[in-house]
Amino acid sequence: MKTRFIALLTDFGEKDYFVPSLKAVIAGINPDARTIDITHEVPSFDIRAASFILFSCCEFFPKGTVFLAVVDPGVASGRAILLAETKKYFFIAPDNGLLTLPLRNKKIVGLRKVTKSRYWLRAGRTTFEARDRMAPVAAWLAHGLSPEELGPKVKTYRRLKINEPLRSGHEILGEILYQDKFGNLITNIPLSMFASVGPSKGMPDLALYLGKTRIGRFVVSYAGVKDDRPFFLINSQGLIEIAVREGSAAAALGAKPGDPLRIGCNPL
Amino acid sequence: MKTRFIALLTDFGEKDYFVPSLKAVIAGINPDARTIDITHEVPSFDIRAASFILFSCCEFFPKGTVFLAVVDPGVASGRAILLAETKKYFFIAPDNGLLTLPLRNKKIVGLRKVTKSRYWLRAGRTTFEARDRMAPVAAWLAHGLSPEELGPKVKTYRRLKINEPLRSGHEILGEILYQDKFGNLITNIPLSMFASVGPSKGMPDLALYLGKTRIGRFVVSYAGVKDDRPFFLINSQGLIEIAVREGSAAAALGAKPGDPLRIGCNPL
Amino acid sequence: MKTRFIALLTDFGEKDYFVPSLKAVIAGINPDARTIDITHEVPSFDIRAASFILFSCCEFFPKGTVFLAVVDPGVASGRAILLAETKKYFFIAPDNGLLTLPLRNKKIVGLRKVTKSRYWLRAGRTTFEARDRMAPVAAWLAHGLSPEELGPKVKTYRRLKINEPLRSGHEILGEILYQDKFGNLITNIPLSMFASVGPSKGMPDLALYLGKTRIGRFVVSYAGVKDDRPFFLINSQGLIEIAVREGSAAAALGAKPGDPLRIGCNPL
Repeated sequence: MKTRFIALLTDFGEKDYFVPSLKAVIAGINPDARTIDITHEVPSFDIRAASFILFSCCEFFPKGTVFLAVVDPGVASGRAILLAETKKYFFIAPDNGLLTLPLRNKKIVGLRKVTKSRYWLRAGRTTFEARDRMAPVAAWLAHGLSPEELGPKVKTYRRLKINEPLRSGHEILGEILYQDKFGNLITNIPLSMFASVGPSKGMPDLALYLGKTRIGRFVVSYAGVKDDRPFFLINSQGLIEIAVREGSAAAALGAKPGDPLRIGCNPL
Repeated sequence: MKTRFIALLTDFGEKDYFVPSLKAVIAGINPDARTIDITHEVPSFDIRAASFILFSCCEFFPKGTVFLAVVDPGVASGRAILLAETKKYFFIAPDNGLLTLPLRNKKIVGLRKVTKSRYWLRAGRTTFEARDRMAPVAAWLAHGLSPEELGPKVKTYRRLKINEPLRSGHEILGEILYQDKFGNLITNIPLSMFASVGPSKGMPDLALYLGKTRIGRFVVSYAGVKDDRPFFLINSQGLIEIAVREGSAAAALGAKPGDPLRIGCNPL
Repeated sequence: MKTRFIALLTDFGEKDYFVPSLKAVIAGINPDARTIDITHEVPSFDIRAASFILFSCCEFFPKGTVFLAVVDPGVASGRAILLAETKKYFFIAPDNGLLTLPLRNKKIVGLRKVTKSRYWLRAGRTTFEARDRMAPVAAWLAHGLSPEELGPKVKTYRRLKINEPLRSGHEILGEILYQDKFGNLITNIPLSMFASVGPSKGMPDLALYLGKTRIGRFVVSYAGVKDDRPFFLINSQGLIEIAVREGSAAAALGAKPGDPLRIGCNPL
């Protein structure tokens, strides 16, 4: 599997020399590779947000894309560098849970620990592993190097504890997963679960409860909402999302990632 | 007209999965296309700022460039997706006024509504049209697809109400259009109109008035200004701009886009 | 020396039309050139920070890369546009000290003033020289144009006054050079000088003093630090850096670039 695209996701920010160092190393090893920035504005050390963002866009990339994702609170602190291969993609990341969501529901065809220093930039250094180890490995993989050259197989990898939504009769208990730039609140409740409680069968009282706040309006798209009261919809990822027309649902509701919510017909 | 460049302008920010999703879709359809970011930091829903930024740089792009510009307060709310073709470029944007300034003074050789779902990613979805409809269309256009494959001709498109500067004798009434990163204030008064009031004919009292504040110094370039009092000049777009040496004119003057101004020889 | 990569560093920010204008001009002249953003978030007019960032990543770029670096407080104010050629790279920048650190310790094989308007976009304009003069020159250089076509040789260039660290016996006097996104404080003290005071020879009292604050812990990597007290280490650039585990050393210590520091065995 040879590719041209390397997609980068980090918490390095864009004001420093970190990100261009990665791109420079890649350009030196594999000048035909083309890097695409996912984002470098993941909140510092926020593995969970990184996992969600990567999950939210990775499936749109072409077959063969190498994803290099680095949010690494304990740089080099014993955690391995993970290389996961699925049918379509390669993922390189610290083995700290970052790949939890991107790999969920995907068949993993290869899982390795990156240990062979032969392809690293400077084997002895550990203060900037993204530049000295992970970027070279991504560049070589995109060049067609076989994953088996990079390190031994491993059986498992570290996963974040993600709270799954729970369904009980016509009620769903979930939580807010992510707040986007516009202040939209994305929940962990997928369309399939929401559909299963039966909103289409005529349940006029069905509402989303965030603490004591009731959001009773479910819409098919942002269009058609004319006032600035919160509503919820199925977003572009197939998840329930709470939104406010041209405004921030997070600010309007005082809500944030991690907050619990409930979908049901009755207030508690 | 085949091209290699797709230029992107949005208000999506750079912290989320929105922008990389567009680039991923483009890479999947047309791996040879090269995307160039104009900006993704347009203030949320600010169509006017988007229009000005696109206008300010589009003419420097190579012939054949496809511009994909998305600031879309009412995602999918009935407005069409517009495809405008000029002699040099393609422009794709929601039909909400965004293309007002980029298309002003350009000959439009084709104007269409994008309606054919054949080239869309997922025809049924409307929550992320930039990814599912506009990005694929940009990728196919850059690949050489004929615009007529994308939808029917339309006769007109929505335009923003832009206040034009008014000249009356030796006086010009204008307004501030845009504040850049440095705090420079760009006005809607072009060089040609300024020249017509005759500054070169010796008018020592000619000044720019912002409310009661008089800015009497007109300079040819930033160079040569040694103090930190405001001045005005013809900027790189051929427009009158108010600036402060190594500082923010906006902060120094308490002024912002939309504020009226006057160029003349006498205070009111 | 022909290349494909042009690396850009500016203080233009990413919200305006400035940076895409440079890329558009480059794409028009040399569509095969590939631009890599170093950063556009240098603090406005901060030549010193720009010099440090460029120094910190330039050596990782492939041979032949053209660096275009623009932080230019006095746009066009008499300062020349400098073109420096080393064995591996071209550097284009205003002659205002920006190239001080990138060129330090490099053999300069050619030093010129860019004066030939033949390759400029619009010779008469001076308000946006980065777009109208420097970007075209970078595009042509990457295309293989000989530097001698661009202007006459010069003998010297402007350098920033950089305080060098001083060693006296087992003591080093230095200063903070740079604060990165994470709040890490990078000093001007290189590994070689630190090694020369003999930390490896058993000097249990050796510490870094920032004013009256003593930082006694020197570590080999970020790993292994389990608490949130400040420590220092040799960073990825080979410089002494002060850090806090998953936190900001700058905030914890109230320190900033320019602050003096001392490494020694005794408090003052």
